Amino acid sequence: MHRIQVGLIGYGTVGSGVIQFLNRRKNFIKNRFHTEFVLKTLCDRSLQNKNTTGLEKTYLTSNFQEVLDDPKIDVVIELIGGMDIAKKIVAGALKRGKHVITANKELIANNGKELFQLAKKYKAQLYFESSVGAGIPIIKTITEGIVGNKFSSLYGIINGTCNFILTEMTQHNRTFTEALQEAQKRGFAEGDPTLDINGMDSTHKLAILVYLAFGKFIKVNEIYTEGITQISHDDIEHAESLNLTIKLLAIAKRVNNDIEARVHPTLISKDHPLASINNIYNAIYLYAEPLGDLLISGQGAGQMTAASGVVSDLINFATKEPKSKLLCNLFDEATHLKVRKIDQIKTKFYIRFMATDKPGVLSKITGILGKHGISINSVTQKAHNPTLAVPVVMLTDYATEKMLRLALRQIQSLSIVKSKPVAIRMEKLW
Amino acid sequence: MHRIQVGLIGYGTVGSGVIQFLNRRKNFIKNRFHTEFVLKTLCDRSLQNKNTTGLEKTYLTSNFQEVLDDPKIDVVIELIGGMDIAKKIVAGALKRGKHVITANKELIANNGKELFQLAKKYKAQLYFESSVGAGIPIIKTITEGIVGNKFSSLYGIINGTCNFILTEMTQHNRTFTEALQEAQKRGFAEGDPTLDINGMDSTHKLAILVYLAFGKFIKVNEIYTEGITQISHDDIEHAESLNLTIKLLAIAKRVNNDIEARVHPTLISKDHPLASINNIYNAIYLYAEPLGDLLISGQGAGQMTAASGVVSDLINFATKEPKSKLLCNLFDEATHLKVRKIDQIKTKFYIRFMATDKPGVLSKITGILGKHGISINSVTQKAHNPTLAVPVVMLTDYATEKMLRLALRQIQSLSIVKSKPVAIRMEKLW
Repeated sequence: MHRIQVGLIGYGTVGSGVIQFLNRRKNFIKNRFHTEFVLKTLCDRSLQNKNTTGLEKTYLTSNFQEVLDDPKIDVVIELIGGMDIAKKIVAGALKRGKHVITANKELIANNGKELFQLAKKYKAQLYFESSVGAGIPIIKTITEGIVGNKFSSLYGIINGTCNFILTEMTQHNRTFTEALQEAQKRGFAEGDPTLDINGMDSTHKLAILVYLAFGKFIKVNEIYTEGITQISHDDIEHAESLNLTIKLLAIAKRVNNDIEARVHPTLISKDHPLASINNIYNAIYLYAEPLGDLLISGQGAGQMTAASGVVSDLINFATKEPKSKLLCNLFDEATHLKVRKIDQIKTKFYIRFMATDKPGVLSKITGILGKHGISINSVTQKAHNPTLAVPVVMLTDYATEKMLRLALRQIQSLSIVKSKPVAIRMEKLW
Repeated sequence: MHRIQVGLIGYGTVGSGVIQFLNRRKNFIKNRFHTEFVLKTLCDRSLQNKNTTGLEKTYLTSNFQEVLDDPKIDVVIELIGGMDIAKKIVAGALKRGKHVITANKELIANNGKELFQLAKKYKAQLYFESSVGAGIPIIKTITEGIVGNKFSSLYGIINGTCNFILTEMTQHNRTFTEALQEAQKRGFAEGDPTLDINGMDSTHKLAILVYLAFGKFIKVNEIYTEGITQISHDDIEHAESLNLTIKLLAIAKRVNNDIEARVHPTLISKDHPLASINNIYNAIYLYAEPLGDLLISGQGAGQMTAASGVVSDLINFATKEPKSKLLCNLFDEATHLKVRKIDQIKTKFYIRFMATDKPGVLSKITGILGKHGISINSVTQKAHNPTLAVPVVMLTDYATEKMLRLALRQIQSLSIVKSKPVAIRMEKLW
């Protein structure tokens, strides 16, 4: 029997899920992998408020240093989240040659390079499957499942809170605020949902995927990020009538020597499989050469699905080891790749604004778009009312962000235009 | 640089795809994995008919024994398919301590146990990602990506030919024969498509998935198998009108200490993600505890997608090694699990037959079903014509296969019933 001593730091929802999972599958893991995971130490800063029945054989502490300094601990599981202390824990463990499993997307997104270097230097391993899509094995898929392929593009619905809110707004006719409240009521959104709804959670995850797929660490602030707070019910309805649906997508593409990396609400065809990924489900749709396209989807959040990713990491760590020099996903960076600025990125756009319903209005607006090199693929004007402003929806052909912004500014200044134009990027995914 | 000597046996479509892939990604593999794969020997029984330009440094032979007997070859890739010779190659290589990569589903399905035992005995590794779903990393996902979970059920669209034919019949209104011809014309069906359309190809793949998910080798002939040759356009149309779609599903479930394993045309809700897996795409939808459900989908056939699975195996073999005693997916069998006979399996059914359009007909038929303990959830009679027989479609509640067969026999013997009843099983996937 292979016995592995575990130090678990962070006894919150996921941490207790991991302990439950390991208990439930103890015999299976023994039988199949001849391995026993012993929870030697459990560390949490507020242990006194937590239920520790069943953990009588485990040493309990609120001082993480005790975990790092225990030479008997083989692997440290970091589940406290956040940056400063988590970094001390992960870096400290690696420096002592301890292997680390973490679900901390923010940490890997911001400090991945440094941590992978430490892991390499100290011959330790660093696993982080649950950092993206919880138990959905997207990290394993990119780094091993379809390894060898050249990744061209990747589209992820990787924030369950946002996907739940957009689904509620689309299917149950709710406003953004109502949908957010429902998400909170059902435990799908944090008390402070800022990082979810402003897109930053997706951005952290995308930074990790970009590194793994393209071999380039990019800074989180190089990823253009736009959340879902500005999505209105009107836009969802217009989208529906155009056979489109709005998803918060994390998008990465390789275009020659440029990387596009961005997170924003995106209109996609309702016929694409990603359009039917609803509620708290996450999905990653990617295209790799020569494999072709691949979709992987499952629940992207929740106690046990996150615990599943951590336990899979633990078993993979225990059963296989990387051959020398191939530790920890640290590989030569594709340094020639540059992140393309959002200004220079070309997409199609959906544009909506209110305009007076008079002859000549559309010709004026399409004239401005035309001067900026933007062609229109379709125009819809929903109602006719010569005395009031009516909504106008336009779908453009490919245009750079920069030219679109310039054109919208001019359009907005027209007296016939009665609202700030809304613009939502569209993506054709196949 | 880690240099690995490869012997490739079988220079057909996939074999030449593997060579192309390795050439194309040679630098990437060197940079990222410090590994070089050297194609030392290429073996094919009809090399004289094949293009071997670019293979000047490779030893060419039509005698596979030369590959097995070459002590310098580290890993043998078997891509000839079929059973007898392939088994000699794979077993022979393992017995010499050579690692093996194969895409041969028939071989693993029928001889997996023996081969895994050989691999263990001779400390060799046996990889077979491309045997199911080609490059879709379903083997990796089950054995590593979500390892530790307890698998409850698995539903696969794992034959691209059948899925293409059913899609053509559904979307383009074709008969089975027309759709098959179209598949052959587009290179999606073999000249002799028997193993695809009779379901056996799916059955081989299902046997592999059952072993990996449930830990029990089951015999291929223990898997109830029904192909798609009997599916008529009428049934597809009736299904559509009931918001259902027909897919050839490979189904495995764990129900207490029984395993259900079967391959047959299946009616599923059009709202389920599997319903939108069309054309040559494959998908596996599975449910595991505590992870929840997971869907993985991509192109399940084609030269380069199959080659992708082989190359991923090769890189994974080269970069990680299993810790001792954990070789090759050989684990203690879940011997207590029994395969449930098809007679005893309960599903809902769609039934269609022609009956005379007279009062009392339905009550006679539902009476027979009722006597066999089968409840009806809905009845549709498409047209009214008191002089001619009209189609009647019934959806039943859960019933065992045995009782349904007995009831159908009685129904068929009624003089008011003018056709042999068609029965298609239904599955609720969530």
